[in-house]
Amino acid sequence: MTEVATARRSRITPEREAELYGATLDLLREVGYEALTMDAVAARTKSSKATLYRQWGGKAELVVRALRHSKPGGLALTDIDTGSLRGDFQALLVREDDCAMEQSSALMRALGMAIHANPDLLQAFRELLIEPEMAEFHKVLQRAIDRGEVSADNPAIGYVLHMMIGGFVARTLIDEQPPTQAYLRDYIDAVVLPALGVPVP
Amino acid sequence: MTEVATARRSRITPEREAELYGATLDLLREVGYEALTMDAVAARTKSSKATLYRQWGGKAELVVRALRHSKPGGLALTDIDTGSLRGDFQALLVREDDCAMEQSSALMRALGMAIHANPDLLQAFRELLIEPEMAEFHKVLQRAIDRGEVSADNPAIGYVLHMMIGGFVARTLIDEQPPTQAYLRDYIDAVVLPALGVPVP
Repeated sequence: MTEVATARRSRITPEREAELYGATLDLLREVGYEALTMDAVAARTKSSKATLYRQWGGKAELVVRALRHSKPGGLALTDIDTGSLRGDFQALLVREDDCAMEQSSALMRALGMAIHANPDLLQAFRELLIEPEMAEFHKVLQRAIDRGEVSADNPAIGYVLHMMIGGFVARTLIDEQPPTQAYLRDYIDAVVLPALGVPVP
Repeated sequence: MTEVATARRSRITPEREAELYGATLDLLREVGYEALTMDAVAARTKSSKATLYRQWGGKAELVVRALRHSKPGGLALTDIDTGSLRGDFQALLVREDDCAMEQSSALMRALGMAIHANPDLLQAFRELLIEPEMAEFHKVLQRAIDRGEVSADNPAIGYVLHMMIGGFVARTLIDEQPPTQAYLRDYIDAVVLPALGVPVP
């Protein structure tokens, strides 16, 4: 899928691509996934529907690529290596500022139900967002294991993304506040590191 | 709100109430919160819309009371006191069997976006579901503190519901499986108890 998509995307400029992604996310926020149509994206961006289908294949891939594009710095954390798991987690957080995080949170809510009702959306979401994110988390955790910070058989290792998603989702629901960097730093110190057996200074 | 609602509800039999709640949840699963109308509930249950409004005041309270009613054993955990936090958490889990848990999970997804778009739904959801659930968690945790199992200043105490919601939500998203009792028992042993500093045997 990646190679095909890259070939397809090369036909438009990065500026135009960013513009199309921005319009897609605006529409997603306004009407939700089910009511979002390729016609509406075409109309708002003054492009042809044929172009959109040629570039992205369909609504699911367009929406997920737009989401992925909205993450500043993309998903690549390979350059994060602060020497401690706590430092790496904190470096991970600053990829998105509080405003971007509030927007992601609203976008994820807009997608919540649709993800489980549309198998193609779930598949694109997993392939393009969850799996790369998990792979990067695993790299960070593997380095912590190699350094001896985390025991290789710690049962919480497989649940790091679950804990993080929980902190993110529950903040809005329980505390009626958007997740912020300060909140997530506190959550990591209180929950994620202790579960992994890493002492918090 | 509670007293008024009790007075209102007393006008119908518990059997009829259960029937109305069942129809409401069926419709919620079928069409989602936004498209669910009091007209549709009235038609399906052969009742008058005026009765529904008199009993529940509106769609938000009807939906949340139906959700609350669907939890077997209700939300009261006051009778749970096994002598250990791990035992109390496990007793909490068996309130809902795997089938009921999968249904709750689907219903919560159906509500996800609507909760943040409808302030009256969010308020009913918090008052009737989140706050009672948090109060019961706090009782269980307070007993663990009194027994000396958990330190009163453990920073994870305020995040127990966040961790649990994370385990629940992320299971479907990351693992493509419904949350089950076996999974949640494992998650509690791997994440929640270690974060609270409680040794797992």
